[in-house]
Amino acid sequence: MSDAASAPLSEFELIRRYFTRPAQKAALGVGDDCALLEARPGHLLAISTDMLVSGRHFFPDVSPEALGHKALAVNLSDLAAMGAEPRAFTLALALPEADPDWLAGLARGMLALADAHGCELIGGDTTRGPLNLCLTVFGDVPPQAALRRDAARAGDDIWVSGTLGDARLALGDCRGEWLLPEPEFTQVRERMERPTPRVALGLALRGVAHAALDISDGLLGDLGHILERSQVGALVDVDALPRSTVLAQQPADLQLECLLAGGDDYELCFTAPAGARDAVRAIGRRLELPLARAGSITAEPGLRLVNRWGSPIAYAGRSFDHFAPG
Amino acid sequence: MSDAASAPLSEFELIRRYFTRPAQKAALGVGDDCALLEARPGHLLAISTDMLVSGRHFFPDVSPEALGHKALAVNLSDLAAMGAEPRAFTLALALPEADPDWLAGLARGMLALADAHGCELIGGDTTRGPLNLCLTVFGDVPPQAALRRDAARAGDDIWVSGTLGDARLALGDCRGEWLLPEPEFTQVRERMERPTPRVALGLALRGVAHAALDISDGLLGDLGHILERSQVGALVDVDALPRSTVLAQQPADLQLECLLAGGDDYELCFTAPAGARDAVRAIGRRLELPLARAGSITAEPGLRLVNRWGSPIAYAGRSFDHFAPG
Repeated sequence: MSDAASAPLSEFELIRRYFTRPAQKAALGVGDDCALLEARPGHLLAISTDMLVSGRHFFPDVSPEALGHKALAVNLSDLAAMGAEPRAFTLALALPEADPDWLAGLARGMLALADAHGCELIGGDTTRGPLNLCLTVFGDVPPQAALRRDAARAGDDIWVSGTLGDARLALGDCRGEWLLPEPEFTQVRERMERPTPRVALGLALRGVAHAALDISDGLLGDLGHILERSQVGALVDVDALPRSTVLAQQPADLQLECLLAGGDDYELCFTAPAGARDAVRAIGRRLELPLARAGSITAEPGLRLVNRWGSPIAYAGRSFDHFAPG
Repeated sequence: MSDAASAPLSEFELIRRYFTRPAQKAALGVGDDCALLEARPGHLLAISTDMLVSGRHFFPDVSPEALGHKALAVNLSDLAAMGAEPRAFTLALALPEADPDWLAGLARGMLALADAHGCELIGGDTTRGPLNLCLTVFGDVPPQAALRRDAARAGDDIWVSGTLGDARLALGDCRGEWLLPEPEFTQVRERMERPTPRVALGLALRGVAHAALDISDGLLGDLGHILERSQVGALVDVDALPRSTVLAQQPADLQLECLLAGGDDYELCFTAPAGARDAVRAIGRRLELPLARAGSITAEPGLRLVNRWGSPIAYAGRSFDHFAPG
């Protein structure tokens, strides 16, 4: 809503310099009113959008490379949770100022991850405003292979990839809730700032898993979405939840908090029939990614937590909610 | 990055209450990791994303209905400029607080326009943060029918739909740059707050127009993109630029400023061969939308402004740039 005098580096220049590359797989990329994308025959287009806000999804002083990586990673994670193959993305960006060095770092972090997954930047928008990144990602998935939240069945095993809770552990240190020794903090901070989207796992689970989602808001809340959509319940063995050696050294209560309610891990939680256990384990070995069986889907509704001996575990925490008082 | 205690109205509740409706044309809508969209055979998917920031794209006290309308309208306008038929959209929303009345108004304004164009809300994201709306829209367009910015040819006529400059005229009043009498202000404010995306025009121009875009940043800057991409120049008759009776009553300099550099009009500017004049006029009659022929594309590069007698017009203003000093 503001008219213009000359600026040191214009909006159009900024975009061109750091983010525009020739269209590769898209029919038309950055620079027109719309990008044009050709559908892959026999596939649906999986679409997800995520908005990242300073102070809520990242600290204001995070390195721009890490931020660029994370902004795309959390979106690719949604594709992974659907069993979709990354294809392209758009980036809308509100910036308080046009800092070329910062933008160059952001582009480096984002485009390196994009290249690693063959995911092309096809369009976007840039404006001045409080720092905000909104990405929309596009992926291909055959209709029958999509890993939907409503597909869990009673008797399914519940699986979790990688380890849970490190991002929450790092966040607590940054906030002063607790203090970790330096090498441990460095290790878990990497998980918070540079999450790994489990794209290859999502693709490998096509035809094997029933339901899946990525753990962004904490296992309890996210698994709750599967239960609600699939109209089933779950029994979760908290001792079987996979954790890093750093987290395993923490007090039991803190471990539980990080494992059950720690967001930002971007591991996959999925359900698969008991007959698929060998297939799931083979996928884990092939991808060199630990896959832990940590419970089962029940016909009876509700989510029950037990320990390794089957005794009920009380847990009063709640899942992440962006509108809860910070 | 904040864990949660209970909140009066949770993020998930908010979304569900105001924005979730059953999937219609999409294979899978709001509520999973991704939405799933089936491509229309023989069509490309046109994709555009726009981010709206408070104080820059709208005034903080704008009515939520008007904001909901405008946020989708500016995105539909991008589809129109491509000759694409609206199909679906995603909405990412950062809100400083979760105000149910405000959200209900936003949803009303947005979904009314969406319904009018058969454009389904298929997914989104909500977070707390400085007010920000990021929409990504999807439309269908046959590959050969897309109205691209690089398709203008020397000898083409330049056409403009509707009238230009009213949104800029209203903005200047709001900012105190000038003062309009009340009925005139009300009329032009409607253009600023509730722009009409020229979707039907974009569709009608398939196979008729060469290049097209929507005028969001001002005619000069936007037309400049066509010239640059098509490697051509233009001769524009400023007296032929269409304006409302309100704007036509303003001083000549102000008219020029609003016509040439006033953003936010969301009219289409398109080029078409001289042989298509009758076809273009017929489209205008059918849609009851004035279409003005206001210049021509030249082989010689550069943009020259002339008056009705062909005499050069000097104009020192510049186009809208979101990073120019406000």
